[in-house]
This record gives sequence, C-alpha cells and structure tokens, in this order.
Amino acid sequence: MSMNRPLLAAFAVAAAAVSLPAAAQFQKPEDAVKYRQSAMTVMGNHFGRIGAMAAGRVPYDAATATANAEIVAMVSRLPFAGFVDGTAGTEKGRASAAIWSKRADFDAKAKTMQDEVTKLLAAAKTNNLDTLKAAFGEAGKSCKGCHDDFRNQ
Amino acid sequence: MSMNRPLLAAFAVAAAAVSLPAAAQFQKPEDAVKYRQSAMTVMGNHFGRIGAMAAGRVPYDAATATANAEIVAMVSRLPFAGFVDGTAGTEKGRASAAIWSKRADFDAKAKTMQDEVTKLLAAAKTNNLDTLKAAFGEAGKSCKGCHDDFRNQ
Repeated sequence: MSMNRPLLAAFAVAAAAVSLPAAAQFQKPEDAVKYRQSAMTVMGNHFGRIGAMAAGRVPYDAATATANAEIVAMVSRLPFAGFVDGTAGTEKGRASAAIWSKRADFDAKAKTMQDEVTKLLAAAKTNNLDTLKAAFGEAGKSCKGCHDDFRNQ
Repeated sequence: MSMNRPLLAAFAVAAAAVSLPAAAQFQKPEDAVKYRQSAMTVMGNHFGRIGAMAAGRVPYDAATATANAEIVAMVSRLPFAGFVDGTAGTEKGRASAAIWSKRADFDAKAKTMQDEVTKLLAAAKTNNLDTLKAAFGEAGKSCKGCHDDFRNQ
C-alpha cells in the first residue's frame, strides 16, 4: 500500500474542515448515543491497530500506520456531536453525567485528544517507528485523561 | 465551491489506498461484528444528513453537504474488513449468511456503493442541489441493492 504525501496532506485538511455543528440531526436521544458509541468504536479500532505496531505485536509499516492515523484523525471529530443534552443515563454505556455538569472541561479534553491524534498522523508520516511510538503514547494519554474523568467504570 | 476533477480523482485514489486488508486485527469475531456495525452506523448517519438536504427537510448548504460526503466516502471503505469468516450468525444483527456464500457478489455491490459515494462527494462539491439530489438517489440505490440481497429483514 503506497501512499502519496501531497494527497495525505489534502486529506488532513479535509478532515480538519469536518468539524460539524453539535446541533446534528439525531431524531431520538438513542440515535445520538448509538452514533457516538459507534464513532468511538471505529476510532478505537484504528487507534488500536497503530498501537499494535507501537507495541511490536504486528510488524511496523509506515503506510498502514498512516492509513489508520488518517481514519483516527477524521473520526476523532465525530463522536462529540452525539453528546447532546438529555442523553446522560439513557444508555447501557459508560458516559458519565459529569460530561454535562462539566461540559467545558469535557470539550477541552476532547480538543486535546483531537490535537494529539493530529500529531499522531504527522508522526505516522515521518516513517520513524520511535516517533510514532512517542506520539501514540501521548495520544493514548489524551484518551485516558478524558476517560478517567468522564467515562464510568 | 467548484469541482476540481484532478483533485477529486486524487481523492478517490487516496480513499482507495485506505482500503485496509481484510485480515484486520480483530481479536474476537464479536469485535469484527461490532466494528462493521459501528462503521455502518456512522456512514448511515452522515448519509442521512445529506438525504435531509436532498429531501428539503433541512436547508441546503454545500459546505455541510461536502463535509458529510467526505465522511461517507472515507467510512465507506471500512465496514467490509469486518465481514470476516466465521461471523455469520454470531450477532443479533442482520448480516445474511449469503454474504459468505456469495462473497464475490457482495464485494461487487460494496464496490458499487463505494463508487457511488465517491460520485456523491463530487456532486456535493458542485454546489448544485439538483446534482446532489441525483447523486444521492443513485448512492441510495447502491445501498439498497446490497441490503436487499445481503441484509436480513
């Protein structure tokens, strides 16, 4: 799988532009919950594939790492539109009520994660495993930082 | 926003490069099922947002249509890696066993859908609602064409 750097740059710009309004079209609260959980699942899967390389469980391949990081970067913009008012406690999932009582903090942590996965994408493009590992570690911390405060155990 | 054919072609190539190997890293069959369902949910949500514009339920906005079409185009590459062997009948979902008994047909229909949503993205960029409506209709047919054959009711 060969990737073309200018194309990837264009892709990253496109991904950054995809910050959709929180007033998204969810017909029912359950739709918003399912959507955000689905986006998290997709993001987590592709983040995990990079992690498998960072941990040496699968062979390092820069193009594959980059392809996965592209997906993570784009999907990282999506879940937060699904945390709409009135969807605390409406699910079997783990969204904490603190998301809504401390929304500014939640939003800031979401932004930090988005920034870190953007850096992860840049790191993936360097074709250097150590750089990727470092960026993966920081991105992982940004996930955990939000989960610790806003995801029920 | 006028459509730039070379750029669009480049985008399609980039999207095609993100067609990850089917031997994706799913630790358990259930993980593959959850992943593909999640990708379909995200894709369906953003496709539906374009549909709301096509149907006149929400005001037409070319930039928003394009942002949603970008997401649809990228996510359209993802679900199929999750249709791994041994995941028929392992879920409450609607994946038909025919997916595995008629895999070539399934893959061809998936490819048709991916082609149609690539055209939908191009249409979104034309900034012309009638063009968007037409492309949305064709893309929707490609979804239905596969669901009719491969999704249980």
